[in-house]
Amino acid sequence: MNLGSDNLAGASPKIMAALVEAAHGTQNPYGQDDLSTAARTALNQAFEAHAEIFFVGTGTAANALALAQISKPWSAIFCHATAHINEAEAGAPESLTGGAKIVGIEGAGGKIDVAGLKAAANRFRKGWQPHVQPAVLSLSQVTECGTLYQPGELGALCAFAHEQGLKVHLDGARFANALVALDGTPAELSWKAGIDVLCLGATKDGAMACEAIMFFDPALADEFTWRIKRAGHVLSKGRLLGAQMLAWLDQDHWLDLARQANAMAAQLQAGLSEIEGVELAWPVEANEIFVWLPAALQQRLRAANITYAPWSTSGTSFNGRLPQEGVFARFVTSFATTPDMIKTLLRVATSS
Amino acid sequence: MNLGSDNLAGASPKIMAALVEAAHGTQNPYGQDDLSTAARTALNQAFEAHAEIFFVGTGTAANALALAQISKPWSAIFCHATAHINEAEAGAPESLTGGAKIVGIEGAGGKIDVAGLKAAANRFRKGWQPHVQPAVLSLSQVTECGTLYQPGELGALCAFAHEQGLKVHLDGARFANALVALDGTPAELSWKAGIDVLCLGATKDGAMACEAIMFFDPALADEFTWRIKRAGHVLSKGRLLGAQMLAWLDQDHWLDLARQANAMAAQLQAGLSEIEGVELAWPVEANEIFVWLPAALQQRLRAANITYAPWSTSGTSFNGRLPQEGVFARFVTSFATTPDMIKTLLRVATSS
Amino acid sequence: MNLGSDNLAGASPKIMAALVEAAHGTQNPYGQDDLSTAARTALNQAFEAHAEIFFVGTGTAANALALAQISKPWSAIFCHATAHINEAEAGAPESLTGGAKIVGIEGAGGKIDVAGLKAAANRFRKGWQPHVQPAVLSLSQVTECGTLYQPGELGALCAFAHEQGLKVHLDGARFANALVALDGTPAELSWKAGIDVLCLGATKDGAMACEAIMFFDPALADEFTWRIKRAGHVLSKGRLLGAQMLAWLDQDHWLDLARQANAMAAQLQAGLSEIEGVELAWPVEANEIFVWLPAALQQRLRAANITYAPWSTSGTSFNGRLPQEGVFARFVTSFATTPDMIKTLLRVATSS
Amino acid sequence: MNLGSDNLAGASPKIMAALVEAAHGTQNPYGQDDLSTAARTALNQAFEAHAEIFFVGTGTAANALALAQISKPWSAIFCHATAHINEAEAGAPESLTGGAKIVGIEGAGGKIDVAGLKAAANRFRKGWQPHVQPAVLSLSQVTECGTLYQPGELGALCAFAHEQGLKVHLDGARFANALVALDGTPAELSWKAGIDVLCLGATKDGAMACEAIMFFDPALADEFTWRIKRAGHVLSKGRLLGAQMLAWLDQDHWLDLARQANAMAAQLQAGLSEIEGVELAWPVEANEIFVWLPAALQQRLRAANITYAPWSTSGTSFNGRLPQEGVFARFVTSFATTPDMIKTLLRVATSS
Repeated sequence: MNLGSDNLAGASPKIMAALVEAAHGTQNPYGQDDLSTAARTALNQAFEAHAEIFFVGTGTAANALALAQISKPWSAIFCHATAHINEAEAGAPESLTGGAKIVGIEGAGGKIDVAGLKAAANRFRKGWQPHVQPAVLSLSQVTECGTLYQPGELGALCAFAHEQGLKVHLDGARFANALVALDGTPAELSWKAGIDVLCLGATKDGAMACEAIMFFDPALADEFTWRIKRAGHVLSKGRLLGAQMLAWLDQDHWLDLARQANAMAAQLQAGLSEIEGVELAWPVEANEIFVWLPAALQQRLRAANITYAPWSTSGTSFNGRLPQEGVFARFVTSFATTPDMIKTLLRVATSS
Repeated sequence: MNLGSDNLAGASPKIMAALVEAAHGTQNPYGQDDLSTAARTALNQAFEAHAEIFFVGTGTAANALALAQISKPWSAIFCHATAHINEAEAGAPESLTGGAKIVGIEGAGGKIDVAGLKAAANRFRKGWQPHVQPAVLSLSQVTECGTLYQPGELGALCAFAHEQGLKVHLDGARFANALVALDGTPAELSWKAGIDVLCLGATKDGAMACEAIMFFDPALADEFTWRIKRAGHVLSKGRLLGAQMLAWLDQDHWLDLARQANAMAAQLQAGLSEIEGVELAWPVEANEIFVWLPAALQQRLRAANITYAPWSTSGTSFNGRLPQEGVFARFVTSFATTPDMIKTLLRVATSS
Repeated sequence: MNLGSDNLAGASPKIMAALVEAAHGTQNPYGQDDLSTAARTALNQAFEAHAEIFFVGTGTAANALALAQISKPWSAIFCHATAHINEAEAGAPESLTGGAKIVGIEGAGGKIDVAGLKAAANRFRKGWQPHVQPAVLSLSQVTECGTLYQPGELGALCAFAHEQGLKVHLDGARFANALVALDGTPAELSWKAGIDVLCLGATKDGAMACEAIMFFDPALADEFTWRIKRAGHVLSKGRLLGAQMLAWLDQDHWLDLARQANAMAAQLQAGLSEIEGVELAWPVEANEIFVWLPAALQQRLRAANITYAPWSTSGTSFNGRLPQEGVFARFVTSFATTPDMIKTLLRVATSS
Repeated sequence: MNLGSDNLAGASPKIMAALVEAAHGTQNPYGQDDLSTAARTALNQAFEAHAEIFFVGTGTAANALALAQISKPWSAIFCHATAHINEAEAGAPESLTGGAKIVGIEGAGGKIDVAGLKAAANRFRKGWQPHVQPAVLSLSQVTECGTLYQPGELGALCAFAHEQGLKVHLDGARFANALVALDGTPAELSWKAGIDVLCLGATKDGAMACEAIMFFDPALADEFTWRIKRAGHVLSKGRLLGAQMLAWLDQDHWLDLARQANAMAAQLQAGLSEIEGVELAWPVEANEIFVWLPAALQQRLRAANITYAPWSTSGTSFNGRLPQEGVFARFVTSFATTPDMIKTLLRVATSS
């Protein structure tokens, strides 16, 4: 059993069945197929939006291309220090923006607040040639610490960003997990809160490889078609992406998959928190759990071939004391995680 | 019926079945899954090689990333004027190489010869600062005119390129179609002929989205892993690519698919060439047919909703006279083209 | 004596005296000094313009940065095949534009005509994703063959370009030489003819290192200040550039320097054309002479240590027959070329 | 009087005289002139080195091009958080490296220590695809806080960097000021300490515009000539740079200029530190002074038209308490600063 990430799971049977179906017959290439067209319509319905929508195969591409579209090479892009775009994409945002500066902001539990954003933005003097110029706030929902921005927090950050002339990008690799955990509609948690561009990830929520880039203001998407083409991200047989997205959205399948992942995380968190010596780093609000594991527990898991991701503590803050020993671990549940798996894990963890 | 391109078809049932199978269970992410590993082994067996192999989702990405890896931003990359990298990728090679110069060379039937390459290379003085420096010869097999380099032609071009210190890249978007049409093994038509890097396309030959980049000299692949990552081309669930490639190679499935496409092109060519007023531009050597269609024929096809791709005549040469009128058309057959489709098309074309 | 280029000469005493003067006292950095400010005013007066003006130290930087400002990475930039931006800047335009495609157009005597431009532009389908998109026409005045666009030719090209939605850039490395040779004011030969951005070179006309980038529509210069900064082209002590430009323009010094260069070319051309076996490639219209030199003449010059630039014949057309033998040579006169030098050269050339 | 920066001064008469001299006669272009050649020899003599040396016109270009040469687009480049490359070059390093990540490290008085570097380097896992890969340590000497690395500190940092496989770049915009303040030869404070590439600035030390890039291991300079060309940084009349550098080095002129600047800073510091309410931020070790000025003093200076640079406190640490009020100011003395100027300033500052 490996709970190191939600990208270790495969894809949901419903999505795969749709793919098989989509493999028949003639379709236009390059995202102009019927399935992609229908998927764009379905997304706009789900988000009560009139967004310009593009599909790509990876979250890194979605983020970097979206950021490139709303920045200049001389822009500063603000994000949390632990953001995926800052820490885990090998510099793809710098690459595809032409060298924009990603400015990491520290904050408790993987979250930026307005004060932190303001302090960071103030370091760059507007109109001053030697300074890169603030252009984008990039938020992650779910955050890289598994926490959530409440709708009010999201709104306040977007409002401040807009006052400063920044566009707001949301890395929604786990947007569905956030959506089912929070009180709000897709629209309320995106464009109504002030998000200008959403990278909506289906891959970690049961698809094989599908991410949507949604420009809620279509004017922001001007000429974007060439940006993705020349990054090599326009699939020849675009139906591969359209079919996944359509099945993912169909009859709230995306929400069902996310609810399953979140529920398993809650069960795991409940079990782990009863174990002596286990320290939870941050509240478990979606499908990720960050904990310090005592050495003995670590050994029991290893002996049972149960895997998690060792994690770094840099770039964020902790609410309580840091344990003197043990490993810092990330567990991520997915649509494919079952109650039996959680039970097995907890049984191993509590055995002696 | 639309025969404008082989990317209008879907994917073969065998490949889709493999994908469904692959969607189950836990796998490592980022191309380290069991299927991708097995696919790399299978490719090396098929090519009698010890290549470093990477999988990406589009041919444009494969070409541009491979070219970037074997060039510098100040390189000249030579190719035929009609090459896909020069004409149909919206500048992706320029983008991902950091601005290398793609130098198009004209030549009959979409093919470069040594004299043409030599003349082009001589325009750039070696070691002279104001000139970009020759670094790469990029060939396409099948060419963009549907013709083939014979093994001897390939060998001569590669030999000359290597003498000049150039690396040789092969855009093999339709490599399988060439392979089944020519007398030679995968090895003979690639590294044994002098190809340094092959972009091997499965997508146009029955896969959904899968391209392999094969560095026959592993040293050429140094740090390539970051190059593809920061272009956003590392799939989170790499099994999507590995599964397709494995099924495509299994029991010569790739060759069967290509043979079907080529056979259909031969039938179509035979039929078309008997129609008065139809002029073939170049020999049909794989699965593409370029012809001038008389206006009346064009109308009959349109009335029957049979579609082809209108094509440009720039950048290449023709063997015979150019018709005074009519449309220049490309037909491409695929694994999914059937004898019945060809018969229907020819019946419409010859009706009056 | 070396007449291979006009960049082999030094700088005019008047300009150097101004530089010495400028070295005293405190001035604002980064182009905000009094001299640069005055030079921008003087330029706008000379051109009857309200241009946004920036100074840089090299023509390559001026061209590449100006092109980057009026294009996108997915743009096609049209120029003559022999243009400096295409042949002699080691890919700087590709580099600083983020990989735009420089499309060389052939034409007699180094000149593009409307038909050639139209044919080139038609190769790229507007709005079609696989094609880079036409964005810029870049002309050179004086051309790389030493010829001139007459005002009417310039106007026709600009008018056609604007109809097509292209911006027009003028590489004016030898603009002063053109200006004194043609019937027209600076304004008539630039913005009134339809030039959107002029790179005006002082370096080859008697300055040490100074080029102005003039955006005749100030809106085109938006954020250009960061573009030049992050290319490292904002001089700390900007007075170096401002002082040169100011002295260059003062009391028509620039025109006097250019007239001297052009007059020397006329004398040299007159003398050479009387020598048997010397073939002029194109009309001598400014300060450059392109000729085939018979082998014997070549040897006499070498023996006398008189140097020219061996030149390539690629990319342009010739009016008459090509000599069977001899070297193709470029001579360029400068402000520092004297009648005595021309006499000496011609005496050597005609000795036997 | 404006002491905000040492780039507000002009150039030394000796250097200007050399420039006037250099403006005569014919010279090869593009840095192949006799003066540049002699300047390279003189630099290698001064540094007891066999470096490959290139001249450019700005410090930003020198830094960014040097960094690009010793990194990959997927590299991490470590520097102090306040480093010029991180804070004051509008992203030029990101631009010219193709998007490398500049990682700012905090540290007291503008200085990095080994522990800080180690912690920063450890954030990036070697060989791990999602992480950019550590490649370069960039130090500034004089630092951006006007402090100095002692030879031992420099050696320890370079040794650690080399152990980690990093190359070391030195931003020596004020290297001469450091040299005359420290006990050591040019060699000892550069390559003997472990510096791989030195950007040696003459501009702030009395030249008009001249920076040398010195690759102490010539192998590191491979193909660098195209890198600077395609950034537009190869001067057509390279003598402009060669002449300045030659005069600057001649008879220790560079050291005399730097001594004058440092001596003036010492006088200013001595005077300021006696004024009640003035707080020195860091030791004054070269030609820069960072102080908090009480509001009253600030007003007196403004009334007397004496200017300094308001400064930011972010990115570094302070030894003592921070004043509750007042402005944080930078004063920089130059070769052109005189004892009379310092006396005037101090008289104004102490008047009441």
